[in-house]
Amino acid sequence: MEKELFIPLILGTNRKDRKSEAAAKWVFGKLSERDGVEAKYFDVRDFHLPTDDYGTGLASQFPEWQSAMQHADGLIIVTPEYNHGYPGILKSVLDLLLKEYIHKPVSFVGVSAGPWGGTRVIEAMLPVVRELGLAATFTDLNFPKIGSKFDESGELLDTAYESRVTGFLDELLWMSKTLRWGRENVPSRFHQ
Amino acid sequence: MEKELFIPLILGTNRKDRKSEAAAKWVFGKLSERDGVEAKYFDVRDFHLPTDDYGTGLASQFPEWQSAMQHADGLIIVTPEYNHGYPGILKSVLDLLLKEYIHKPVSFVGVSAGPWGGTRVIEAMLPVVRELGLAATFTDLNFPKIGSKFDESGELLDTAYESRVTGFLDELLWMSKTLRWGRENVPSRFHQ
Amino acid sequence: MEKELFIPLILGTNRKDRKSEAAAKWVFGKLSERDGVEAKYFDVRDFHLPTDDYGTGLASQFPEWQSAMQHADGLIIVTPEYNHGYPGILKSVLDLLLKEYIHKPVSFVGVSAGPWGGTRVIEAMLPVVRELGLAATFTDLNFPKIGSKFDESGELLDTAYESRVTGFLDELLWMSKTLRWGRENVPSRFHQ
Amino acid sequence: MEKELFIPLILGTNRKDRKSEAAAKWVFGKLSERDGVEAKYFDVRDFHLPTDDYGTGLASQFPEWQSAMQHADGLIIVTPEYNHGYPGILKSVLDLLLKEYIHKPVSFVGVSAGPWGGTRVIEAMLPVVRELGLAATFTDLNFPKIGSKFDESGELLDTAYESRVTGFLDELLWMSKTLRWGRENVPSRFHQ
Repeated sequence: MEKELFIPLILGTNRKDRKSEAAAKWVFGKLSERDGVEAKYFDVRDFHLPTDDYGTGLASQFPEWQSAMQHADGLIIVTPEYNHGYPGILKSVLDLLLKEYIHKPVSFVGVSAGPWGGTRVIEAMLPVVRELGLAATFTDLNFPKIGSKFDESGELLDTAYESRVTGFLDELLWMSKTLRWGRENVPSRFHQ
Repeated sequence: MEKELFIPLILGTNRKDRKSEAAAKWVFGKLSERDGVEAKYFDVRDFHLPTDDYGTGLASQFPEWQSAMQHADGLIIVTPEYNHGYPGILKSVLDLLLKEYIHKPVSFVGVSAGPWGGTRVIEAMLPVVRELGLAATFTDLNFPKIGSKFDESGELLDTAYESRVTGFLDELLWMSKTLRWGRENVPSRFHQ
Repeated sequence: MEKELFIPLILGTNRKDRKSEAAAKWVFGKLSERDGVEAKYFDVRDFHLPTDDYGTGLASQFPEWQSAMQHADGLIIVTPEYNHGYPGILKSVLDLLLKEYIHKPVSFVGVSAGPWGGTRVIEAMLPVVRELGLAATFTDLNFPKIGSKFDESGELLDTAYESRVTGFLDELLWMSKTLRWGRENVPSRFHQ
Repeated sequence: MEKELFIPLILGTNRKDRKSEAAAKWVFGKLSERDGVEAKYFDVRDFHLPTDDYGTGLASQFPEWQSAMQHADGLIIVTPEYNHGYPGILKSVLDLLLKEYIHKPVSFVGVSAGPWGGTRVIEAMLPVVRELGLAATFTDLNFPKIGSKFDESGELLDTAYESRVTGFLDELLWMSKTLRWGRENVPSRFHQ
């Protein structure tokens, strides 16, 4: 029997009135339902980063995140767009680790208050995740006008997302399986 | 007599072993020496941001930064490159304000441990500063291999930077004077 | 009496079935109607570039474009998004010149077949125009779903664009006036 | 016996006095020497694109390129940096195809006249290749100051590149083998 794919999802904003949480939870539910997938939820708000240090030297202070990425077969990043870029806290959390990410796929869920669906924050993240060794999939999930996408109970009001999330997860799982085979079968100086 | 130009400079990293501080201090010294310029130094390490909130709602907790940008005629950002992007804390600090930045120029000092001089973090910042209303100048100052650029007392070891910093500041001051004239003389819905 | 502002607009695609032309012509009409503005229309399709050379060495073969940018006070670029980037021909045309662009503003009209309004091609252009010495304004005009925005006679079907284009042009003209004052009154090594 | 990996390399500039050609030929030589690799050289100068059309509608006019990418297991793009972006002709050639690229890796060789090694054009290409379905590797090869890197006979003067090109190709071949396994063994709506 094939080993399950382990896929963490991280919600990338700590703003008090964040609307992205509804999108993150909904996508996480869909991810968790997939056969052969073990999912784990992270929230950047739970990372109490120091104000006087930064980077991989702090990794051991966040053992759950480090361990998750060590064992991960893929990653989902749910991020709103702040001034066309990524939230500071999300970058700080990503920069905690390095070799744990190598040769694993990452997929993006972009969120915006306005009409553009976080398209720009996804473009902004591409150089970062590549340098971390992550391979970005090309099938994003975009939530424009997030304020009117979910009802008060967190129910998604737009049925078009059902097929979108299927395609989104299909591609992430394709890449997760493929890169896991590579990590296990093709020698590389990056994993020994 | 012409009013002085007020130009804050911000050091954008809080990493413990940061090398960018030497570059920031050296550029700040050169800025301060210029006739008709009042300079002010900021360090992101002095911003004790909460872990459970983000954005312009927090501006009033940082009155010195807010006031500086309200009165600023321009801005210098000194930033290292972490994984091809900006430090999280720098983005968090920039995202504290919004209308304070409009129609003011920003210039970049890029810093790297390796050979590329922070070229990539500067590219990464362009969409962000534009959305903030800042106008990016096109004459960057790059410090590659920062570990060997300064001696222990903070003295810059490479004399080529003398003429580079002159050109860099000339352009920032050109843009600062020009945009100040615009803010004071050309009506706009962005400043009344 | 104040000298008119001279503002070229360039349509950035040569695809046979291009839909961006309707947007370009509509914006050009609005630009031409503004008091104190002289507008000029360029179409990349009219640039017959060689296949065996590239760059500023070819500038003299395109005297109308060169002369326009020499005398321009600002520029509008109308561009569709192809695979998240700019059309090749648009980049080839922009790369024909260099010092002609310095200290002039540029504004973007982004066009897409899908829902995102060319947001990504605008992000992609920011490093390019900055390096050319152009100052990008921060008030874009976006035309998503361009296929249904105009009727057969080129009439715009969505009235919301009337106020949008006003704000878009207001900002370009603010920057055009301001930077022209700077070019004429503040010394710089870039214009003598 | 394992099937060979088929890896095209494309030189992305048509400038008359292009220096990138020496880098392209040198990398192509190294690629060709690798066991189990069949390499093929493309030069954008050989693509006589029309001035009045653009995009995938033209693919059938370039059957050699189309066929190569259909059968390719990976791609190397050698590109200089013009004004912080990609050469127009390179984008025009890449935009000729679409589904042929999906689930294949691409690696970048960046070239510059100045000291930054084409770092910025590589960042600029990331959104484009991702949208094409290509997976960008994270081990670039950079040639700064290209004018002094090769002697007149095309001999590379800096021996440090021997180990760099080995790491560069190792990673491309790792990804090529891995993604080929995925294309052949993991079902996807993108290849049937």
